[in-house]
Amino acid sequence: MGSGLMGKRKEKISSSIAWSTPDKISVRGLDLPNEILGHMNLGDLAFLQLTGRKATPEESRVFNAIVITLVEHGITPSALAARMTYMGAPESLQAAVAAGLCGLGTVFVGSMEGASKMLYEALPQDKLGTGVDLDALAVETVEKFRARKMIVPGLGHPVHKPVDPRTPRLFQIAAENGKSGEYIELIQKIQAVAEEKSGKMLPINATGAIGAICCEFGFPWKIVRGFGVMARSIGLVGHILEESENPISYELWQRAEQEILETSGPGAA
Amino acid sequence: MGSGLMGKRKEKISSSIAWSTPDKISVRGLDLPNEILGHMNLGDLAFLQLTGRKATPEESRVFNAIVITLVEHGITPSALAARMTYMGAPESLQAAVAAGLCGLGTVFVGSMEGASKMLYEALPQDKLGTGVDLDALAVETVEKFRARKMIVPGLGHPVHKPVDPRTPRLFQIAAENGKSGEYIELIQKIQAVAEEKSGKMLPINATGAIGAICCEFGFPWKIVRGFGVMARSIGLVGHILEESENPISYELWQRAEQEILETSGPGAA
Amino acid sequence: MGSGLMGKRKEKISSSIAWSTPDKISVRGLDLPNEILGHMNLGDLAFLQLTGRKATPEESRVFNAIVITLVEHGITPSALAARMTYMGAPESLQAAVAAGLCGLGTVFVGSMEGASKMLYEALPQDKLGTGVDLDALAVETVEKFRARKMIVPGLGHPVHKPVDPRTPRLFQIAAENGKSGEYIELIQKIQAVAEEKSGKMLPINATGAIGAICCEFGFPWKIVRGFGVMARSIGLVGHILEESENPISYELWQRAEQEILETSGPGAA
Amino acid sequence: MGSGLMGKRKEKISSSIAWSTPDKISVRGLDLPNEILGHMNLGDLAFLQLTGRKATPEESRVFNAIVITLVEHGITPSALAARMTYMGAPESLQAAVAAGLCGLGTVFVGSMEGASKMLYEALPQDKLGTGVDLDALAVETVEKFRARKMIVPGLGHPVHKPVDPRTPRLFQIAAENGKSGEYIELIQKIQAVAEEKSGKMLPINATGAIGAICCEFGFPWKIVRGFGVMARSIGLVGHILEESENPISYELWQRAEQEILETSGPGAA
Repeated sequence: MGSGLMGKRKEKISSSIAWSTPDKISVRGLDLPNEILGHMNLGDLAFLQLTGRKATPEESRVFNAIVITLVEHGITPSALAARMTYMGAPESLQAAVAAGLCGLGTVFVGSMEGASKMLYEALPQDKLGTGVDLDALAVETVEKFRARKMIVPGLGHPVHKPVDPRTPRLFQIAAENGKSGEYIELIQKIQAVAEEKSGKMLPINATGAIGAICCEFGFPWKIVRGFGVMARSIGLVGHILEESENPISYELWQRAEQEILETSGPGAA
Repeated sequence: MGSGLMGKRKEKISSSIAWSTPDKISVRGLDLPNEILGHMNLGDLAFLQLTGRKATPEESRVFNAIVITLVEHGITPSALAARMTYMGAPESLQAAVAAGLCGLGTVFVGSMEGASKMLYEALPQDKLGTGVDLDALAVETVEKFRARKMIVPGLGHPVHKPVDPRTPRLFQIAAENGKSGEYIELIQKIQAVAEEKSGKMLPINATGAIGAICCEFGFPWKIVRGFGVMARSIGLVGHILEESENPISYELWQRAEQEILETSGPGAA
Repeated sequence: MGSGLMGKRKEKISSSIAWSTPDKISVRGLDLPNEILGHMNLGDLAFLQLTGRKATPEESRVFNAIVITLVEHGITPSALAARMTYMGAPESLQAAVAAGLCGLGTVFVGSMEGASKMLYEALPQDKLGTGVDLDALAVETVEKFRARKMIVPGLGHPVHKPVDPRTPRLFQIAAENGKSGEYIELIQKIQAVAEEKSGKMLPINATGAIGAICCEFGFPWKIVRGFGVMARSIGLVGHILEESENPISYELWQRAEQEILETSGPGAA
Repeated sequence: MGSGLMGKRKEKISSSIAWSTPDKISVRGLDLPNEILGHMNLGDLAFLQLTGRKATPEESRVFNAIVITLVEHGITPSALAARMTYMGAPESLQAAVAAGLCGLGTVFVGSMEGASKMLYEALPQDKLGTGVDLDALAVETVEKFRARKMIVPGLGHPVHKPVDPRTPRLFQIAAENGKSGEYIELIQKIQAVAEEKSGKMLPINATGAIGAICCEFGFPWKIVRGFGVMARSIGLVGHILEESENPISYELWQRAEQEILETSGPGAA
């Protein structure tokens, strides 16, 4: 066990998110029934929940856009996991969503986190506006990843090339609302360098674009993956509803089982 | 295994949620970058994802309100499960959210589903507007649950009494936007009967109110729990962010361990 | 929220499972390093953990057999969910196992629970040895399920017919070790009646056999599903190891995505 | 998304774990009913599932011991997460176990993986028996972690000091069964160096001992965490059974909520 946990005892636990009494429910200091319900949309409440303050109209537009981007991308592995789970436990919809979320790790949605972390490490927030040479930073960053034989987070997509169509639109929305700064500039330079060095098409994918915009907001990189997780949970509920009406899991399972029986079963060479 | 699965083979699988090609991503028939991003808030996209059509402004207000209601309710068991999980696996934020969602079953958030199911069973959608005697239905419904010694779903709350403050506000928002009809009327009558028969304070709690409003929308009861699941995933990301900055799990764990050592350990009588 | 939770406050929490001090770890009253490690196999420890006492040699043989039965059944939906999850989050093996477990609900492994519950309801433990007419009970039980248009839990299998090969072997092991009594007799009679009434092949499947043997042990039906859950977690680790060496998820995902693009994408009729 | 996934298409999927036909179920080439049931204990089947071959009697003793060690350690965060989840969704026992597993990451059980990885990196399998200077390796390894300000995986425990009582017993069982070699020697040297350099008590904890023994077996480090996951799933089923009979979650939740109301609610300073 990590000794990092030791010494974390505290006299009293506290939380500044919410509290309730018989007749009141307060979320981030606002009265839920009277100051939130009917006054905010779901994205704005997510912003409030995460930051402790109300989004400005500009922030609301950008934040809603980045979270919405991640809700749905068709029959992803996470949608398949959720649908397979629902087939076995239709009485536990929540567990099917949970199963679908479990795979949002370093390979898929979690790559947002990697992009934000990379950008913050290259350009700490206290260096913003100090005239850092972004071209040099981009070269340095790409070389660091190449030296470790690691892919640059937020670049590349198996389907969307040469451009991920979500990226220019997200950058446009960010620019229109005052959220386009050095981090977006930096990831664009990183992409150019990475494509040149590798000789491959490496578009800034949606998670890269969002990772950069999250840096423009100043969100801690540790929480960036969470935007994808909350978004995808919405998408997964949609997949489960469709699975209940037009199931595909049983067919996919049977095909897989039969194919393995053929390739690996008693009759296989 | 349930034989209900047999015979579900199909020639081709299909899905009407989303598809993508190298330069296009379509969600429910809309172009994600150009027709959704920057044009919708997160709640409206959830509505689109679930129903396949855009919400009207009235539907948007009511739907955003019901989902928002479920985002946050303080240090719930699901928040505690998520925080405990994050302590052990801080690199897997998605798994901490998943852990927190797993408990949204029949006792907590899933009670929305129970309320919707009860209302639809009492008053099928094809009986709406046919002058059914709601008072009689309410008595009949409560008696059915009492006969089976089951609690009426959507009623009662350990803290919020005599009134759950979310409920009148939700009903007000529903009424202001044309979503207050026989289902809301029926659950109010059910509550009155249940309080009278039991002699206890049994306020319509938030999940009961939402269950009734979901019936006003006509959402299938099987998916109603999903609104709570998607909402809570947002709340849980907020709890995990706070846990990373102001942890409480370690302290709560240590206290539990020490107390059990005292009551049940070597020195216990 | 269910009012069933109210009034569950208690002065002190306690647990009789385990405790530890700096130099001792006690599990169910035994010293883990000295009385358990090197002296028990994993199945016996599971028995100890669940019942609070050591298994007899006969109990050990039967209990190990029933749990082992559930470890592995090829490319099940739960194995697919775990593999899909691992593809996205290879750094979180535990989350991939968790995803695979989430689907062990009423349709698959959880049917063990249904079988045990059915048998206990038909023949409560205090009626054992009192000469109850099992033939009449079997007819009554099948009719109850047929009246509710529900399938009889523990009967029927899409692949294993006319006999699930695990069932006679499990019943043999139970008989050889003094664990074959009225519950096994009853499920066999239930099967005969169900086949006759339905005109279909309805073999006692492995979960039915195990459900009955669990009743012979006297395990509470609420925990029976747990044997399948612990067993399957072992199987899933095996699938994840194979997925890391010989991946199938990516291929299955790509095929599903392409097929949906064909049937439901821009070019579809 | 990681481009590492691209190019993983394959003609046919295959699996060498298991297959079934109407009258046969084969697991790792053995006939499940006739060659496994009644002939193996659960730990041995886990070994078969993971390695594809039967354990020798010596391997069986050591492997059962390492997995058993991880089943139970009292009211851990993972047990708390499982119990909190069960309170909300008692109908989904599998989801409660899943929730408990989700936290077995880098901080707790996953540290086994870290220990194995560290040992393999220091001493690759092809260097075994070539007379590598383990003392020098130990110093080098500790210094590498200290330079990165990271804790050495497998060392230190908040409760079990100066010795984790599981460790000497596990090393004894390994030695008695021919599984004590250079990896165990190396971790012992690493511990001595780490204690000396840090001036702290850093016992080899159970996950460190198991990580080293896993290297003696030659298990891939990527799967080592899986042994803890399968073990803990057994422990969690025990906790859930106890929670159903002697609940503690509700009390712990209420206490946490009240304390937060006091420290962070409307009356807080």
